[in-house]
Amino acid sequence: MPQGVPLTVPDDNLTTKQRRNRPLLMVNTGDGKGKSTAAFGMALRGWNQGFKVGVFQFVKSAKWRVGEQAVLERLGELHSQTGEGGPVEWHKMGSGWSWSRKAGTADDHAADAAAGWAEVKRRLAEQTHDFYVLDEFTYPISWGWVDVDDVVETFANRPGHQHVVVTGRRAHPKLVEAADLVTEMTKIKHPMDAGQKGQRGIEW
Amino acid sequence: MPQGVPLTVPDDNLTTKQRRNRPLLMVNTGDGKGKSTAAFGMALRGWNQGFKVGVFQFVKSAKWRVGEQAVLERLGELHSQTGEGGPVEWHKMGSGWSWSRKAGTADDHAADAAAGWAEVKRRLAEQTHDFYVLDEFTYPISWGWVDVDDVVETFANRPGHQHVVVTGRRAHPKLVEAADLVTEMTKIKHPMDAGQKGQRGIEW
Repeated sequence: MPQGVPLTVPDDNLTTKQRRNRPLLMVNTGDGKGKSTAAFGMALRGWNQGFKVGVFQFVKSAKWRVGEQAVLERLGELHSQTGEGGPVEWHKMGSGWSWSRKAGTADDHAADAAAGWAEVKRRLAEQTHDFYVLDEFTYPISWGWVDVDDVVETFANRPGHQHVVVTGRRAHPKLVEAADLVTEMTKIKHPMDAGQKGQRGIEW
Repeated sequence: MPQGVPLTVPDDNLTTKQRRNRPLLMVNTGDGKGKSTAAFGMALRGWNQGFKVGVFQFVKSAKWRVGEQAVLERLGELHSQTGEGGPVEWHKMGSGWSWSRKAGTADDHAADAAAGWAEVKRRLAEQTHDFYVLDEFTYPISWGWVDVDDVVETFANRPGHQHVVVTGRRAHPKLVEAADLVTEMTKIKHPMDAGQKGQRGIEW
């Protein structure tokens, strides 16, 4: 089969061009590495196409992806300076979110996650970005902090042409069902199994 | 178990710091998406840490990763201009390789792949880069164009502190055995199954 030729043509009354340009909901899940890294790699491609990129990190942890953040924010700056690529916003759930005026109640992760999702919903409605990375967003769904039906319905009805990629382990079956592209990253072998720790340039 | 704590401490007479800084051989394999994208995402992190990044694309195809190439080369340029990050070289096996003076014998992919590997070997010996992406390098190994024992031995004996990531389907068992970190990307669901084609900002 020639590369890029679909296996079947769906009965959806869309032209190939319309299908080609359908905005995608993507999920990178599984216990292996590369879920977020691949999502940020896609954001890079989007930036290069002039997409407005929005990253939302939903888990407070040491895994802040400082390298990707630094580079993507630098690319966003480059866009402001030279017009190359697209603008980039990177938001993380630290003590509250950066757009929020209140300092955040240090320990109410559930409320912070819900506030993050409410903001993403607003932005989807307003078509603020072209490419959303909802990093580790599977967890607040798993933990019941964000309602999966609301998530799936919001994604299904998002206006315009907004791509969304969700990362994290154990993606909810309803999210998998709703997604266009789902990839599972599986660990075959990991250096931490052999006593190694994370290192500069590899883990961060 | 606290995050980042090894399961076992190997009996290798290395200190934790030595182990932590051991250069890694990584393989992203499997039939799913994200193998190369995750590798380029790692290259991004490496760039941010000032690593000298070298990308070598081993398969002649339409999948040229133009987005990642444009952005990584732009970052390399930024390094020349401002000193940020590290230098980036991106080589692809078109009609021969960019470093080669001869135009390349348009159809001898096997010879071109072998020439590419010979160059990577030279660079590993000379410690030209800190982070190598050998994109789709599993294929010339599978096809016997590059000797897997030579590859494994070269990686095992590479001097200094050079990270290598190899991408592609069906990684050779000897390569998997030799690697420190192996991740398999599995397709759970793909829009092409539903008749969609690749699109701007997503596939390239």
